[in-house]
Amino acid sequence: MSKKEHIVIVGAGLCGTLLGVRLAQRGYEVSLYERRPDLRQVEQDAGRSINLALSHRGLMALATAGLGEEVRDLCIPMHGRMIHAPSGDKWLSPYSGREGEYINSISRPGLNALLLEKGDSYSNLTIYFEHKCVGVDLEAASARFVNKDGVEVEAKGDLLIGTDGAGSVVRRAMMAQSTDLLFNFSQNFLRSGYKELSIPASATGDFRIESNALHIWPRGKFMMIALPNLDKSFTVTLFHPFDGPTGFRTLNTPEKVKAFFQEHYSDALEHLPELETEYFTNPHAALGTIKCYPWQAYHRTLLMGDAAHAIVPFYGQGMNAAFEDVRLFDELLDEHNGDWEKILPEYSETRPQDTNAIADLAVDNFYEMQDKVDDADFIQKRQLEMKLEQQFPEYYSKYSLVTFKPELSYHEAMVKGRRQDEFLLQLVNETPVEELDLSAVLEKVNKL
Amino acid sequence: MSKKEHIVIVGAGLCGTLLGVRLAQRGYEVSLYERRPDLRQVEQDAGRSINLALSHRGLMALATAGLGEEVRDLCIPMHGRMIHAPSGDKWLSPYSGREGEYINSISRPGLNALLLEKGDSYSNLTIYFEHKCVGVDLEAASARFVNKDGVEVEAKGDLLIGTDGAGSVVRRAMMAQSTDLLFNFSQNFLRSGYKELSIPASATGDFRIESNALHIWPRGKFMMIALPNLDKSFTVTLFHPFDGPTGFRTLNTPEKVKAFFQEHYSDALEHLPELETEYFTNPHAALGTIKCYPWQAYHRTLLMGDAAHAIVPFYGQGMNAAFEDVRLFDELLDEHNGDWEKILPEYSETRPQDTNAIADLAVDNFYEMQDKVDDADFIQKRQLEMKLEQQFPEYYSKYSLVTFKPELSYHEAMVKGRRQDEFLLQLVNETPVEELDLSAVLEKVNKL
Repeated sequence: MSKKEHIVIVGAGLCGTLLGVRLAQRGYEVSLYERRPDLRQVEQDAGRSINLALSHRGLMALATAGLGEEVRDLCIPMHGRMIHAPSGDKWLSPYSGREGEYINSISRPGLNALLLEKGDSYSNLTIYFEHKCVGVDLEAASARFVNKDGVEVEAKGDLLIGTDGAGSVVRRAMMAQSTDLLFNFSQNFLRSGYKELSIPASATGDFRIESNALHIWPRGKFMMIALPNLDKSFTVTLFHPFDGPTGFRTLNTPEKVKAFFQEHYSDALEHLPELETEYFTNPHAALGTIKCYPWQAYHRTLLMGDAAHAIVPFYGQGMNAAFEDVRLFDELLDEHNGDWEKILPEYSETRPQDTNAIADLAVDNFYEMQDKVDDADFIQKRQLEMKLEQQFPEYYSKYSLVTFKPELSYHEAMVKGRRQDEFLLQLVNETPVEELDLSAVLEKVNKL
Repeated sequence: MSKKEHIVIVGAGLCGTLLGVRLAQRGYEVSLYERRPDLRQVEQDAGRSINLALSHRGLMALATAGLGEEVRDLCIPMHGRMIHAPSGDKWLSPYSGREGEYINSISRPGLNALLLEKGDSYSNLTIYFEHKCVGVDLEAASARFVNKDGVEVEAKGDLLIGTDGAGSVVRRAMMAQSTDLLFNFSQNFLRSGYKELSIPASATGDFRIESNALHIWPRGKFMMIALPNLDKSFTVTLFHPFDGPTGFRTLNTPEKVKAFFQEHYSDALEHLPELETEYFTNPHAALGTIKCYPWQAYHRTLLMGDAAHAIVPFYGQGMNAAFEDVRLFDELLDEHNGDWEKILPEYSETRPQDTNAIADLAVDNFYEMQDKVDDADFIQKRQLEMKLEQQFPEYYSKYSLVTFKPELSYHEAMVKGRRQDEFLLQLVNETPVEELDLSAVLEKVNKL
C-alpha cells in the first residue's frame, strides 16, 4: 500500500469527519467535502439543538482516533430512563445494574466541532465547506461539487467514501446503476413523526428536571422525551402520529395543543414556557429506516454511516453505529494492509448484518418506549435484569448487550438479547421477581 | 359518481390496457398513454418472444372484461413441469391432480394486441402511443408526456393511474415525495440473472420437445427452462449467477459455452442450433422484486401492476397478479360506487399484503425450481399432493392454492400452503407415500 493514496470523503458530518481524522492519522491524503458551511463559524448554540446519545460503541471508536478523553467534556451522563406516568408519578429505570455504565447526552454540533478541530490538526486532511456534491463516478472514485461561488470542481481519489447521510448523493449514484450493481435498497417510514420543543434552564440557571436521565412520557400510541444539554436546558421531542386524534396535523390550534398537554403531559407543561411558539414554528418530520446492499461499487466507492444505514433514533445508536463503522473499517485496513480490492468487498459483505440488526432493534424500541416502559411486566423484567447485573456482572441484558458491550456485534446482541427478553418476560409473568432464585435464573439464561 | 369522470392511465402494457378496457366498459372517459409504438404496427412475431404463464387468476380477470374466451386461442396448455435430470432422464411433474387445471403459455405481445384491439372498440377510450411520461403531479392527477414529435403534452384526469411497469415514472414521483407520503419502497435483486435462447420448430414444422409442459433443467445453483410458442418454437431461458464458475460473465467464449452445455444441458443441445449466436447476442439481465406502500397519493393517483409490485417470474404469477389488481379494483368500484376517497385508500391498504405474498412465494420458487424439483423428498411430496388432489378434489396443494384457486387471496394461499408444505414434507420424509392412509393425511392437513 502506498501511503500517498488519495481518499475523497463526501460529507463532513460526524461519521465523515471521524473517518477523515482516522485516515489522516494513517497517512492517507484525505479530501473531505461538506455541503454546509463550517458549523464552527456559523452562529450556533452548541449546547443546545439536536442532541444524541453517545455510548460505549461510539466512545470506543472515538478512542481509536485519540478523542476518547476530550469528548467527555461534552457529555452529560444519563443513568436511566425517567418515566413520567400519566398519573404524575415518576421513577428512574436504570440502564444498567453495573457501576459506570450509562449513556451520554451530547450535542451534535458540539461533537462535530470537536471532530473538525481535530481534523484541522492534520496537514494531509483538507476540509472543503460549502461544496455540494452534484455527481459521482463510482468506477473512477471521483465526485463533482458545486462550491459557494457556483463553480463546479471535481475531486478524484483512489477511493471515494460517501458519508453524506440519509439523503446520500453517493448512494443515489449506486441506485442509478441498480441493475448493474444488483443494488438492493429499502426505505421504511414509521407512521409517526417527531417535533422538537425545549425546556429552558430555570430562572436560577439550573436544570428544571433531573439532569442525569433520559425523560420519557410514554402514552401508548405517542410519547414525549427530553434529553439534557450543557446549558441546563433540555431538548424535548414529541413522537406522535401525523394523523388521527393525537396527530400533529390534528393538534393544529393553540387551544387544542394546550388542552392536549394539560391532559397528557401535565407535569411537563410548567417547564415548557415556549410550547405554543415552538409547536407551531418547528416542523414535524418523518422517521425512517434505510437499508441497502452492497455498500461498495467497483472496489472504488464505499458508503458508510447514515448513507448506508439510516435508522430511527429510539435505541440511541445511530451515531454509535456510524462511529463503529469507522472503527471496523480501520481494523480491516490493518488486516488487509490497505488493499481496497479485499477491504471493500469484505466490509460490504459483513457489516450490513449488524447495521440491519440495530435498525430493527431501534424500531422495536420505538414501541417499547412509547408503550411498554410503564407496563407492569416490563417493569418487573427490568427489575430482574438490574438485580442480575448487580449480582452477576457477567450478565448483560439486551439493552446492555447493545449499548455497553461493543466487543459483541449488534447482530449477536440482537439474537442473544431477544432470546433473553422472551425468557425473562415469561418468567416474571409467572413468578414475582422477589421470589426468584437469581442463580437459577442466570443458569437458565446461560443455557438459552 | 359522475360517469363522465376522466381517468388518465400511464402505460398501455398488459395491466394498463385491461384496466383501460374495464374502465371504458364502466363508462369512464379513459386516456391511455404508452411510451412505445403500437405493437400491432411494429414488425413483431407475436407467437414468439417473451412468453408468460396465464392461469386462473388472470383468466378470471380477463373474463370480467369479456375476454375469457377470446384469449383461449392464444394459449398453449402446460399440464406440468417436464424435469430434465442431468442423467438425461426426464419426467412430467403435473401441476394438479384435478382434471382441467393447467397453466397456459402465452405470448406477451399477442395478448397485449388482443387487449388493444378490445380497447379500440370503445369510443370513450383513447390510446396515445409514443407518448413518454416525463412528469407527474400526484395531487392534480395530471401527467406530462413527450410525443414522438418531441412535443410536450399534458393530460389531466379526475384520477391518474400508473401502470407503467417496474421502472414506473409515476412511482418515481411518489418516491420524490417520500417524506410527505411516508412512502416505503424496496428493491431486491436475485444474485442470478437471465438470458433468453430459443428452440426453433423442427424441419417438419413441429414442436421438437413435448409441447404441453414447462420444461426445466434444474441444476442446483442454476437452471434452464423452456416454454412453448404457437409457432412450435420454444422460448428458452437460462437462469445463472452473474459471476462464479457457472456465471454469465465467466462463460464468455463459444468454447466455454459449448462445453458447459455439453456437460450440463446435453439433451437440449441438439435443439439449440443458434445457441452460440443467441448466447452472445442476447443480453443477460437482472431479476428483481419491488415492493412499495402506499400505492395511492392524495386520493388522486394510484399505482397498479408491476409499477406497484414487480416480482420475479418463478411462480408464473406476475401478469396474473397485475390482472387480479384490475379485477379487485373493479370490485371496489362497485362497493364504493366510484368514490375515489374511499376506493384508493382501501385498495392501498388491502392489496399490498397479497402482492407481497406472491412476491415472496416467487422468490421461494426460484430456489425450488433450480434445486428442489429433482430432490427425492420433493418428488414424494408432489406425488402425495397429486394423490390427494385426485382422490379429494377439495384438497389444494400450495401450488394449486396459488395458481388454481383465485377466490383465495395470495396471502391466504401462502400461509395455508406453507403450513401444508411443511407438514407433508415431514410426512414423506418419515413414511413412503404408498404406505400412507390418504384419508388420515387429509384429516390432519385440515386440522393444521
